[in-house]
Amino acid sequence: MGNADDGKYGSAASHRVTLPPPQPFVTSLKNTLKETLFPDDPLRQFKNQPVRRKVVLGLQYLFPILEWAPRYTLDSFKSDLIAGITIASLAIPQGISYAKLANLPPILGLYSSFVPPLVYAMMGSSRDLAVGTVAVGSLLMGSMLGSVVNASEEPKLYLHLAFTATFAAGLFEAALGIFRLGFIVDFLSHATIVGFMSGAATVVCLQQLKGLLGLDHFTHATDVLSVMHSVFTQTHKWRWESAVLGCVFLFYLMLARYLSKRKAKLFWISAMAPLTSVIMATIFVYFTHVEKHGVQVIGELKKGINPSSVMDFNFDSKYLPLAIKTGIVTGIIALAEGIAVGRSFAMFKNYHIDGNKEMIAFGMMNIAGSCTSCYLTAGPFSRSAVNFNAGCKTAVSNIVMALAVMITLLFLTPLFHYTPIVVLSSIIIAAMLGLIDYQAAIHLWHVDKFDFLVCITAYVGVVFASIEVGLVLAIGLSIMRILLFVARPKTLVLGNIPDSKVFRNVDHYQNATIVPGIIILEIDSPIYFANSNYLRERILRWIDEEEGRLKSLGETSLQYVVLDMSAVGNIDTSGISMLDEVKKIIDRRGLKLMMVNPGAEVMKKLNKSKFLETIGQEWIFLTVGEAVGACNYMLHSCTQQMNAHETDKQYNNV
Amino acid sequence: MGNADDGKYGSAASHRVTLPPPQPFVTSLKNTLKETLFPDDPLRQFKNQPVRRKVVLGLQYLFPILEWAPRYTLDSFKSDLIAGITIASLAIPQGISYAKLANLPPILGLYSSFVPPLVYAMMGSSRDLAVGTVAVGSLLMGSMLGSVVNASEEPKLYLHLAFTATFAAGLFEAALGIFRLGFIVDFLSHATIVGFMSGAATVVCLQQLKGLLGLDHFTHATDVLSVMHSVFTQTHKWRWESAVLGCVFLFYLMLARYLSKRKAKLFWISAMAPLTSVIMATIFVYFTHVEKHGVQVIGELKKGINPSSVMDFNFDSKYLPLAIKTGIVTGIIALAEGIAVGRSFAMFKNYHIDGNKEMIAFGMMNIAGSCTSCYLTAGPFSRSAVNFNAGCKTAVSNIVMALAVMITLLFLTPLFHYTPIVVLSSIIIAAMLGLIDYQAAIHLWHVDKFDFLVCITAYVGVVFASIEVGLVLAIGLSIMRILLFVARPKTLVLGNIPDSKVFRNVDHYQNATIVPGIIILEIDSPIYFANSNYLRERILRWIDEEEGRLKSLGETSLQYVVLDMSAVGNIDTSGISMLDEVKKIIDRRGLKLMMVNPGAEVMKKLNKSKFLETIGQEWIFLTVGEAVGACNYMLHSCTQQMNAHETDKQYNNV
Repeated sequence: MGNADDGKYGSAASHRVTLPPPQPFVTSLKNTLKETLFPDDPLRQFKNQPVRRKVVLGLQYLFPILEWAPRYTLDSFKSDLIAGITIASLAIPQGISYAKLANLPPILGLYSSFVPPLVYAMMGSSRDLAVGTVAVGSLLMGSMLGSVVNASEEPKLYLHLAFTATFAAGLFEAALGIFRLGFIVDFLSHATIVGFMSGAATVVCLQQLKGLLGLDHFTHATDVLSVMHSVFTQTHKWRWESAVLGCVFLFYLMLARYLSKRKAKLFWISAMAPLTSVIMATIFVYFTHVEKHGVQVIGELKKGINPSSVMDFNFDSKYLPLAIKTGIVTGIIALAEGIAVGRSFAMFKNYHIDGNKEMIAFGMMNIAGSCTSCYLTAGPFSRSAVNFNAGCKTAVSNIVMALAVMITLLFLTPLFHYTPIVVLSSIIIAAMLGLIDYQAAIHLWHVDKFDFLVCITAYVGVVFASIEVGLVLAIGLSIMRILLFVARPKTLVLGNIPDSKVFRNVDHYQNATIVPGIIILEIDSPIYFANSNYLRERILRWIDEEEGRLKSLGETSLQYVVLDMSAVGNIDTSGISMLDEVKKIIDRRGLKLMMVNPGAEVMKKLNKSKFLETIGQEWIFLTVGEAVGACNYMLHSCTQQMNAHETDKQYNNV
Repeated sequence: MGNADDGKYGSAASHRVTLPPPQPFVTSLKNTLKETLFPDDPLRQFKNQPVRRKVVLGLQYLFPILEWAPRYTLDSFKSDLIAGITIASLAIPQGISYAKLANLPPILGLYSSFVPPLVYAMMGSSRDLAVGTVAVGSLLMGSMLGSVVNASEEPKLYLHLAFTATFAAGLFEAALGIFRLGFIVDFLSHATIVGFMSGAATVVCLQQLKGLLGLDHFTHATDVLSVMHSVFTQTHKWRWESAVLGCVFLFYLMLARYLSKRKAKLFWISAMAPLTSVIMATIFVYFTHVEKHGVQVIGELKKGINPSSVMDFNFDSKYLPLAIKTGIVTGIIALAEGIAVGRSFAMFKNYHIDGNKEMIAFGMMNIAGSCTSCYLTAGPFSRSAVNFNAGCKTAVSNIVMALAVMITLLFLTPLFHYTPIVVLSSIIIAAMLGLIDYQAAIHLWHVDKFDFLVCITAYVGVVFASIEVGLVLAIGLSIMRILLFVARPKTLVLGNIPDSKVFRNVDHYQNATIVPGIIILEIDSPIYFANSNYLRERILRWIDEEEGRLKSLGETSLQYVVLDMSAVGNIDTSGISMLDEVKKIIDRRGLKLMMVNPGAEVMKKLNKSKFLETIGQEWIFLTVGEAVGACNYMLHSCTQQMNAHETDKQYNNV
């Protein structure tokens, strides 16, 4: 800091930290609520419009199809038709497989690919999302309901609970959207999702050992130890016929995936592989009749489209908490996956997805689904990726898929009679192996160790304990990180960057020099109850250490403590008490406390709590440079310093 | 921003944002752990000392008495003697009353004022804390244990569980201190404690209606509705004798308090009032024999000091979870109160209290207490305030009190035979009314509305539901505030303060002017998974709005987006993905993204994730002024701007 400048600052700092303009409590509450719940200001476009236009806009808001359908072209339809048929070919075997994963009748998987996609096509805002059942959601529903009701002993009760849980999931999702609480989903961090999905995929693969080895009895637990125990205590019941068939098709599916990955244009090989596997396996079983040699088949599938299930809901108080809990957990997981998938494709094509609107769409699609014999649906990544690669243009591809599934339901279900279950296991395993994203985990390790820890916790929790435990652990750890950030904020010592009036952290900028006699501390988080005790200790320790350092060097002793509050976004009453105490202790030591650049919120509260009077508003500066200038001015001219102290005393006496 | 300056910035920004010096992972982990768990650096004084000195220092660290006892003087002893006798006179009636509150035999209250104070005198670091049982802790223990075991039906089991819970509380407290987890207590904010204490005091007062009205049967619930129901369904059982006696002594106690408050020197009137009440009431009952007319008396108290209770612990798996839960909840509440009390008196006398050390002392005192027929003890505010006012100098006043209680236990217990219970109720009510701190609540309302909400929630929860519910609600709300701060960070638009190179929030500084063609946004919190979606939406909305505004004014269109990262303390992988997406969208719109002053941690992660390469390190500036200077330079010289874009493209191609 050049001495030439001192005169300028010493006389009177040229820029003052003012109090923010006063705002009535109601206004500020309104603003806070608006920023919290309506950050995207969804009503912006409704402003200054005639009523009629408002109605049209409102309908278009709820049903995006009204917006894009009038502009729909034949060209788009051609693309959507191809994409729709492609995803239907994937949807049919996947639907049947995932229903098995949830311990539900296979036909439910087909039902679930008929009604929900139609609802989504009208209400959803993603153009690329392909709707259907999801592996993780299915497994989660199976394990949660299965922990109370045995699916094979009480199939009817189990089925009804599944509908009820789906209904609850839909209600919950829609409510999140309507009440603008979409940010709850944001608490599932990227790292949590990576770890959770990989763990769930691992668990799903392990569950397939049942089908692959042709076992009749299998553990209901999902953790790796129980599964391994179950598999290896039944070695005598392993069926090699089943295992061979499964491995052959798994190899075929993996090969198809490998080819598609090498050339993007060959995506259809991978997309068609599940259906061709099913066809080939069915034909093979039909002609060889290996179903009599331990290869289980799907058997009879009822013809006809979705029956109503409105009368099947089970609101018995004995099971209701279970159904609601299952609904909420599976609903939020389905949402998180679906919205993340929708968002990534929207990024590619540069359009916007409104999270809260998507939640309403997901909710309505599950509510409608639960009334028409469907269980939990969302936007599975694999199917949406195929949809995207197949060149879909709008949600019409979902309609095409639904129609294709409808035709299957009406006419083709008998064809699945001889489909071996083991081929479904192969399809699931092939899909799941793609979800184990070890590269993402490596990336997390490189960039952010804590994120890696969260990811691994989720994985280990899901694989070794249970899906819920893994999820809760990972979310808990993520939240703990935020709390820890606030509970243990960084206090940085600032030094002067040579040839400038800029002050920066001396640990970061090695050329920054500490100004003698002054310690400048930057506080890096809001000052809340959670950190006020810590900050008091830490600030006093910095002062102790700096005094010790100056003493050992024989330099001028410490005179000023400058707190840079630029990064302090807010303060609460515990924080203000802390500042009060720090001020008292600093005074008692004969030092002078200064403050730099408190924000609007902080200034307001310091004023209301009278701390501004305690510290004296003239000791609050707009920039660190000005504060240091004032210090230097007073340090260098002793007499003037005396005067300043006198003035200070006078102020305090006033 | 003066045009004259532009040349300086345009050519090349003079100060670069550098990467922080590299640090091996282990070092940075060590630093983080040290800052998190050892913020006060307790081993500082052990550095560079010979082994012998280290042992002495270590013992002094554990037993502060070794430090101050050698310097103890006769003068100090005189003060401590007076203070000790004063607090003993308060401790005896309070001890008996609070034990009743916990549904424990009255004698336990006396036992608990004998052993624990001796332990604390050796291990505690506060000079003013008076150890004893606490009202809220007693009530909490009574209500938690009472919800499972009925104290009057199974008194032995109940008593043993109380010892076990106290033992658990002691273990938990000591563990918190030993593992340096003291910051858990910090999550009880000032507002929570004010609301919680006032609520608990209200509840304790309500419970006294039982004694005051001389009722035999009373609800075990603590909420106001149950208590009122219990009181008003038994109107025919009310005993006027009891009520009159109680009100007379309550009036006497309140009068004594009022006198003491008016003149600080008369503190002893208030301090002695409980004991004199007990003596007067006992004498009154002894001579009038009103105990035969519905005034309940304490009855027989066993002579002799604390018997051992080591063999009484109940580790039966049926009750162990209850005992542990009770221990943890009461332990943490007792700690929070005790440490807050210790800290406030230490502030007055300007000495330091080490939170973690205090926890170990509290823990050891409860462990020792639980082995010697004591129940939960801490540092009650009322007793400590009397201790302080009586002029105590060191923890010797606790020793004096313990000895006085010992003499009472050995010789004087028969004197309490005729003490009416109603006078104990009066003592409790008088003590509790002082804890209802409505002035603090008003202060909270003025300074911080959210803190007020937390306070009221705690109060209402405690009074209308239960003590635990109130506590959990208030803590949950406090934590939600922190999460909300991170989930909905402020994004502030910065403008130039006239005649300076300083940029500040335009809403706060009304004279700050927005620089045409540039939008400068300050982000006010770390960028984490919880806010990355929000920030993306919000940043893009700011850009939309600014573009709209400029269009409506017919000004130059938006060209640059400057993100001021000064207040961004950290970033995680979700945050980096967000920045990546924002950068892509901004690029696609033909705008240019710049960044200002990212901190060390943020720079490190931006570098590791290759985002620095994406954005180009030359677009990161040390100050907003320099960034704006660079923008203006490019805006004003069109040809040069073209060149800059060309250069930019080249960089991107590299």
